[in-house]
Amino acid sequence: MRSDAARRRQLIIDAGCELLIKNGQHMTLESVAERAGVGIATLYRNFSTRNDLIYHCIIQITKQQMNILTTTQQEFRAEGSDPEKKLREIIPRTIPCGINVLVPALMTAPLESLDSTLIDIREEFVTKVQEMVGTLREMGLLHESVGLLDFLQGLIALYTPPQFDVGLDYDYPYDVSKAVDIFLVGCKNGPHFAYPM
Amino acid sequence: MRSDAARRRQLIIDAGCELLIKNGQHMTLESVAERAGVGIATLYRNFSTRNDLIYHCIIQITKQQMNILTTTQQEFRAEGSDPEKKLREIIPRTIPCGINVLVPALMTAPLESLDSTLIDIREEFVTKVQEMVGTLREMGLLHESVGLLDFLQGLIALYTPPQFDVGLDYDYPYDVSKAVDIFLVGCKNGPHFAYPM
Repeated sequence: MRSDAARRRQLIIDAGCELLIKNGQHMTLESVAERAGVGIATLYRNFSTRNDLIYHCIIQITKQQMNILTTTQQEFRAEGSDPEKKLREIIPRTIPCGINVLVPALMTAPLESLDSTLIDIREEFVTKVQEMVGTLREMGLLHESVGLLDFLQGLIALYTPPQFDVGLDYDYPYDVSKAVDIFLVGCKNGPHFAYPM
Repeated sequence: MRSDAARRRQLIIDAGCELLIKNGQHMTLESVAERAGVGIATLYRNFSTRNDLIYHCIIQITKQQMNILTTTQQEFRAEGSDPEKKLREIIPRTIPCGINVLVPALMTAPLESLDSTLIDIREEFVTKVQEMVGTLREMGLLHESVGLLDFLQGLIALYTPPQFDVGLDYDYPYDVSKAVDIFLVGCKNGPHFAYPM
């Protein structure tokens, strides 16, 4: 019984993470309950507010992304690896899969809006991202005039669906991986314009 | 009396353009009526469906953007102008101000979804954009491996607000003009990876 309750709670968090990552602010609690296969009453018994659910999702998304970043960091430094190829591989598994939530929810959020758990998680996460960024700079893939947030927020934006896409009866034919490749060239070379080193 | 009606209709279209550009699919007819300062009944008397209003907005946005592109095209070619600076000036006046609607609504829409008016407008618009892109290539600002849509859709994405931003009690501190500058370096140099010329 108790483990059934724990399992249901976990299903709700999993569904919440998935829909928060996909729909952001447009995530509804009804869609989370449906995705988790539980009734809305069960959801509310577990999470009394939308923010309470989002809180637990942020913690879970951070853990998942930390694991991916740790593994990738090792692969980056493995002998014979091609860091440019590796970077292009990791972007689709991180940027639209949780980093798009963690940057606004943790990295750029004012500290006074976070409780001590989130502040701790934030610190671990920021440290991990900084390590990754340090590696990219060493490898010559990130110009010193391109900041950590410039890099992450630009990539997040490239993965964000356009405002005007629903209501059209066709798929918007957008080659996001090519847009990312173009952006990465800019990250490597740095913007030449108004940003002297 | 008749001219009052025409004026109100124009106010509704103006408000529709503004909110379509800003909110895309999330534009509501109620918000358009409010912005235009008319009742919802007046709006429905003028436009029986949401799509009818969007149709007229697309025509107006196209005209506005054509005018901007024509002027800019001349300025680009003016003696002593700095095309790189000019490009960075024109982007904030076009990409988030209508091009973000016209690319999905006209350029990449299947022709069979457009009526003859929109097909004509589309052709004029595409021709104008191709001219602009041709100028950018001549000026060395757009690599031949970066297509017209790669260029426009990447810029549109960079201006699209992130999914996860509302519900946070602070402004997301995103430097879109720097993201654009980074992307433009990639457009100039071309992605070196899997896109041989």
